[in-house]
Amino acid sequence: MSWSQHLDAHEGRYLESLSEFVSIASVSTDPARRPEMARACDWLCAWAREQNLTAEIWPTAGHPSVYIETPAVPDKPVLLIYGHYDVQPAEDVELWTDPPFQPTVREDRLYGRGASDNKGQIWTHCAAIQSLLAAGELPCQIKILVEGEEEVGSPNLPRLLEERRSRLGADLVLVSDTSTAVKGVPTLHYSLRGIVIFEVHLSTAGRDVHSGVFGGTSPNATHRLAQLIARLHDPEGRVTIPGFYDRVRIADAREKELLERVPFDAKVYQEFIGCDELVGEAGFTTNERRWFRPTLDCNGLGGGFQGEGSKTIVPARAWAKFSARLVADQQPDEVLECCRRWFEAQTWAGRIDFRADHGGPPYLLDPYGPMSGYLEKAREALRQAWNQEPLLVRHGGAIPIVSQFQTILGLSTLLMGFGSPDDAIHSPNEKFELANFRRGLRTSCHFLTSLGS
Amino acid sequence: MSWSQHLDAHEGRYLESLSEFVSIASVSTDPARRPEMARACDWLCAWAREQNLTAEIWPTAGHPSVYIETPAVPDKPVLLIYGHYDVQPAEDVELWTDPPFQPTVREDRLYGRGASDNKGQIWTHCAAIQSLLAAGELPCQIKILVEGEEEVGSPNLPRLLEERRSRLGADLVLVSDTSTAVKGVPTLHYSLRGIVIFEVHLSTAGRDVHSGVFGGTSPNATHRLAQLIARLHDPEGRVTIPGFYDRVRIADAREKELLERVPFDAKVYQEFIGCDELVGEAGFTTNERRWFRPTLDCNGLGGGFQGEGSKTIVPARAWAKFSARLVADQQPDEVLECCRRWFEAQTWAGRIDFRADHGGPPYLLDPYGPMSGYLEKAREALRQAWNQEPLLVRHGGAIPIVSQFQTILGLSTLLMGFGSPDDAIHSPNEKFELANFRRGLRTSCHFLTSLGS
Repeated sequence: MSWSQHLDAHEGRYLESLSEFVSIASVSTDPARRPEMARACDWLCAWAREQNLTAEIWPTAGHPSVYIETPAVPDKPVLLIYGHYDVQPAEDVELWTDPPFQPTVREDRLYGRGASDNKGQIWTHCAAIQSLLAAGELPCQIKILVEGEEEVGSPNLPRLLEERRSRLGADLVLVSDTSTAVKGVPTLHYSLRGIVIFEVHLSTAGRDVHSGVFGGTSPNATHRLAQLIARLHDPEGRVTIPGFYDRVRIADAREKELLERVPFDAKVYQEFIGCDELVGEAGFTTNERRWFRPTLDCNGLGGGFQGEGSKTIVPARAWAKFSARLVADQQPDEVLECCRRWFEAQTWAGRIDFRADHGGPPYLLDPYGPMSGYLEKAREALRQAWNQEPLLVRHGGAIPIVSQFQTILGLSTLLMGFGSPDDAIHSPNEKFELANFRRGLRTSCHFLTSLGS
Repeated sequence: MSWSQHLDAHEGRYLESLSEFVSIASVSTDPARRPEMARACDWLCAWAREQNLTAEIWPTAGHPSVYIETPAVPDKPVLLIYGHYDVQPAEDVELWTDPPFQPTVREDRLYGRGASDNKGQIWTHCAAIQSLLAAGELPCQIKILVEGEEEVGSPNLPRLLEERRSRLGADLVLVSDTSTAVKGVPTLHYSLRGIVIFEVHLSTAGRDVHSGVFGGTSPNATHRLAQLIARLHDPEGRVTIPGFYDRVRIADAREKELLERVPFDAKVYQEFIGCDELVGEAGFTTNERRWFRPTLDCNGLGGGFQGEGSKTIVPARAWAKFSARLVADQQPDEVLECCRRWFEAQTWAGRIDFRADHGGPPYLLDPYGPMSGYLEKAREALRQAWNQEPLLVRHGGAIPIVSQFQTILGLSTLLMGFGSPDDAIHSPNEKFELANFRRGLRTSCHFLTSLGS
């Protein structure tokens, strides 16, 4: 029996197993859910042992990770598949049509917390492996790392990667924790933006003063913060901080061609945001602005009197939080330093306290570089399973783990997500499209097979 | 016995009475202090009746006012003296050297909550009247209105003024609820700034969006609010809103001369604020900026994520609170309308929700106008009692009741305060300088006598 025949025969069983997995309320933020976190680990290990695979529970300072390993296959690539068994809370039960931890199939969708993010997606690979094993065709060694803290920022993952470096040796990482760029169109993401986060606290005086007695003579911190923020962008929408764009890699003709293939409806996009007009850096399209260009956004600001009603003061203090999104080949430390230098040079504004927070580098798997062979195999697998040309696009967000695989393990990551943009992950009524599940199973089998060929 | 001899003989008794008045914890904000509010009213009425004066308690929707009236004196001016018997809370008892409601004399000062604001100051006039009555010299009719809600914004005073308009007929109001401009130098204030208060709520999109997925394309409300605020002033520190300065009365040579007499130490002033430099409108001195020029200050602002840590969003909403200080002859409604028009015209910024709050007109008693005779009598009384040339200056703050006397009763107000700038009103260890009390008693006697001459 080929893996394909096995899949056809077992699809229903795989869906039942996924329902079982989704029914475990493994909410990593909730201390009361600790037993269910353990149950999710045990469930994965039990499955792996049924397949005669090595399965280990790797403790961390927080929730443990599950590690599964297929037998080594000499002279074939080793693939590390990453996923997470923890899910977002679902406290807003009343907003769900079906209880979040009673998985329900309706209209060819599986509804339930974690159905898409990330149980459905990681399980797709497990089930594919089961079919390959049943067909006796496992073409290469596969290592699976399923962590339990993704929804809380993976605080213990870097340490785990350090500790388990030798076990995690591989040629490539595969992460299925994204969605297709366009509903129904298979997608590979080859780049993620990096991030730099900082706060600026501004103080113009020793105290807030009465705006009657002192107003017109005492420096107002909210005015000056406003002037600082207003100066961060020029009228063309470019960040004015010297050095900010220094290392930005210009998209070449081939990347631009990939970009042009992406169907994009600006009207739908704008309607989702609910704005009167889209904005951004002059000379770039909307998708270039969010995928190819770095940005600097104030994420929040405050100063002076924040309560109800009025308090007629000249405020002495104001603050703002910022995040910069970085693209290849920007370095978080360098960008942070540019920003720090710029803010600290604005001495006219008052005393500036620049507070750097965490950051992460951008990620780019050069679609025409040394890893392009793997990328081509993934495209071909998607093409075969979906009977459709896949999109190969950049992504505007950051997935810190991908950078950690790069920096700690030295591994490149393929981002091949089976989620749909309308899966409502982190929201009520999360679901997983069963069409994507079925196509995902076949994609995974095709891809793993081609890795070994 | 002349009033002067009577004063000399009774000063100690007057101080004892003041201590009694200050010992009543008439905190208007505290519902538990209701009995003490009533006790303060009764105490004032009892004093008035001992002097054979008419004394009435006038109820309001909140705390009542006390009204005291001396007999009419035909063909002489009628003076309405305003004060308040309510005091600020003193919850921070541990910060007081002596208990706030156990008045204590140390170093020729009376310490206690309300000692300066306003019990000591209103009582100074009462005691002066007692000496004048004892000397049989009361030269004109005096009406005294002592309200109980000044510390909570006098919400029921305008209505009371309307209702009691006929009883409150007078030629002039005298308010002693300010402090001298410079410690130890007697001061008359002839002008107060008015105020206009409003909020601006800005919305650039229907929702906050992820700064990775959408950053660089979605309009950021905090950036636009910052640009709005940055545009409110030109590089010379002038408000850019068209019409803002339209009616501002230019100080004439005589007012400038008065201003030049005010001792002013910019270093001390700046040290109090704790700023690196004083700021303001080009072409004006610090005292001109705070007394003669209107200002527009953002009193507080907020937008996006306000919590601890970071939330990498492009914020859809931001807001700012503003107050404009007005000078003669600006009209609050007109200035508010200028501001509304300006903000609502900034459609590039997003959807703007302009919310007008309360306002009050500026106040100016033209020192060379029809009321200048009264002003001259007040200056002369201060000169005699303090043996020093009094200052005649504008004030940067607003005292809404003064505008209400003008608009509701059609009466001009003399602002002659006996407080000292370091009296710590509204703060722990509030005190009243007994030197100011003694001089105040004589000032009041001189002034009332001269009114009848």
